[in-house]
Amino acid sequence: MKKQICILGSTGSIGTQALEVIEEHSDLYEVYCLTAYNHVEMLAEQAHKFKPAAVVIANEDHYERLCSLLSDCPDINVYAGAEALEEIVEAEPIDMVLTAMVGFAGLKPTIRAIKAHKKICLANKETLVVAGELIMGLAQENHCPILPVDSEHSAIFQSLVGDADTEIEKILLTASGGPFRKFTLEDMKSVTAADALKHPTWDMGAKITIDSASMMNKGFEVIEAKWLFGVDADRIQVLVHPQSIVHSAVQYVDGSVKAQLGVPDMRLPIQYAFSFPQRLHLSGERLDLFRQPLEFFEPDMEKFRCLAMAYESLRMGGNMSCIVNAANEVVNEAFRKDKCGFLQMGDIIAETMQRATFVKKPTLDDYLMSDAEARRIAASLL
Amino acid sequence: MKKQICILGSTGSIGTQALEVIEEHSDLYEVYCLTAYNHVEMLAEQAHKFKPAAVVIANEDHYERLCSLLSDCPDINVYAGAEALEEIVEAEPIDMVLTAMVGFAGLKPTIRAIKAHKKICLANKETLVVAGELIMGLAQENHCPILPVDSEHSAIFQSLVGDADTEIEKILLTASGGPFRKFTLEDMKSVTAADALKHPTWDMGAKITIDSASMMNKGFEVIEAKWLFGVDADRIQVLVHPQSIVHSAVQYVDGSVKAQLGVPDMRLPIQYAFSFPQRLHLSGERLDLFRQPLEFFEPDMEKFRCLAMAYESLRMGGNMSCIVNAANEVVNEAFRKDKCGFLQMGDIIAETMQRATFVKKPTLDDYLMSDAEARRIAASLL
Repeated sequence: MKKQICILGSTGSIGTQALEVIEEHSDLYEVYCLTAYNHVEMLAEQAHKFKPAAVVIANEDHYERLCSLLSDCPDINVYAGAEALEEIVEAEPIDMVLTAMVGFAGLKPTIRAIKAHKKICLANKETLVVAGELIMGLAQENHCPILPVDSEHSAIFQSLVGDADTEIEKILLTASGGPFRKFTLEDMKSVTAADALKHPTWDMGAKITIDSASMMNKGFEVIEAKWLFGVDADRIQVLVHPQSIVHSAVQYVDGSVKAQLGVPDMRLPIQYAFSFPQRLHLSGERLDLFRQPLEFFEPDMEKFRCLAMAYESLRMGGNMSCIVNAANEVVNEAFRKDKCGFLQMGDIIAETMQRATFVKKPTLDDYLMSDAEARRIAASLL
Repeated sequence: MKKQICILGSTGSIGTQALEVIEEHSDLYEVYCLTAYNHVEMLAEQAHKFKPAAVVIANEDHYERLCSLLSDCPDINVYAGAEALEEIVEAEPIDMVLTAMVGFAGLKPTIRAIKAHKKICLANKETLVVAGELIMGLAQENHCPILPVDSEHSAIFQSLVGDADTEIEKILLTASGGPFRKFTLEDMKSVTAADALKHPTWDMGAKITIDSASMMNKGFEVIEAKWLFGVDADRIQVLVHPQSIVHSAVQYVDGSVKAQLGVPDMRLPIQYAFSFPQRLHLSGERLDLFRQPLEFFEPDMEKFRCLAMAYESLRMGGNMSCIVNAANEVVNEAFRKDKCGFLQMGDIIAETMQRATFVKKPTLDDYLMSDAEARRIAASLL
């Protein structure tokens, strides 16, 4: 029996690479459902090729266009809207849900998928950043496996296979360091979105590229790692590793360190999340360790204040990471539109952390309210 | 119930470190038997401390001395001779046998231990180099786990935990490169034993240090890796890694590479072999990746002809690795006594490979005869 996969966000970078993986292993996997927010033409194209049982366009404005593009495929059910997105993940035939949409919108469908006992291949960062405690609690209750698709968390997960979580001494989370790694604080005052978008290693989309430049992205990954692997902030160490070959590592109680390495290729963590605990052949370039030495540096927490704030939010707990995420989404967008300076992003997030209502044990509704409140505060500070 | 351990070769570097591990985890492990070849004083001292049920001194000349040293310990049975060594490993209470003696002498007791269904913690290199096919066949027949204690093979084993052997694409075996890594072939003509014994990284005993300088040691590790992990020679790649931080790695069919890293500390692989599949706390220095970049180079097979010959012996199969090992033991000793030049070691091994009788499917007796024949030939060529 082929595994039935639902891809939330199939037109993005992770979604399209997931489809490549599924195509390469069409004997094992089948697409049950594809979803997108705005990219209706591409979604229709994918649907023509993969013949899913259903497609969902989250932005209802594109519903009719999608219907007409798929009028030659009567077997494909076409839906629209956020509610449809949340319902489709519960469809009985689905085995795995790949959550590859961007932003806070990933939270609700992920919760529904967990409650429907689907295996979650988690590529939506915000799910755990915003509501890690809630999500992991639900996953445990529902005996629902959550497999990380992020390359760093996949590396940690791969390093942990066969070893017990209780034997972790430390998680070593690697970071490329971004384009401003060698800048002084003074240099960083005047950097622009255009500077930040010249990310040295690979293409990830503008929002994440800015988060990488500020290292907020790494801060979010620290938060995700805490929830995925049950390791406290002070046992998660960020290592700046400009070559991006070591994707992360785990240090055990006996001092042994296990690392996962490879060329940067997101198809690997996607495929591993699908195929775990097995590994399948993946075509493509292999690692060449002779090419360059591997270097590791301590991150500068003063220069990269966003990283320090992510740690701080984790130590404070409650809804604080949700507040940081919301404020960051606002300043990130403002920075991309040249309405906010690079260092000012950190100032506004810090101020939002101060002003927003702290909730020690947030419910889902609390998260939704905190998110809205933090966005309002951050926007007012611009 | 504490696990009962028999240490063959308790007075050597691995043996003494194994005792440190046992001491640190005296709630889990107990020494059942200690053995040594010549070091009778040290053996008696260890026996006083660890109160084993039995001690064996392989060299019978020391039997009376050992008896008198242990006359105050009537509960410790004292034995002597090679035959006693082979018998003691079969003792019913023993759970694990650590084979930490040096040289060909390790083969017979290991076979007996496997037949007695003891878990083998393998530190004796020659066992697999000489008779890998025979040993692994026996281990399979007797459902007897063989756990590597060598740091490289332990690294591969640790990287493989939780992944399937069938999913290995390649083994990446690291090597420090030894003291002559940067020498030209011309430079190597005149190096002496004293030069070779200035090994840069750690203390391992003179025989292995010379083998490291010639990279024959790495060649033997390639042979061991083939037998332990069932991977052919052409899928085992040696990487020269002067920092000796990455202890080895495995590349999988999906291109993912998993590596084990750490400070050089033999207590780790010893303890892991004891505690597998668990990990126990081990005190001591932790890895600091900030200290130095990690570099990897291709080995020069012309300069390090011994490494090339080890690969060659593996491709030829049969008793050829046994012949290489025997010839190497002779030239290694001769070199240490300044009776053979550094490059001459390789010439003599190559010539011995030509002259010795090739046996395609050797029995244990064939191995013993091949060993003796190859030693005679190599000695005659000095």
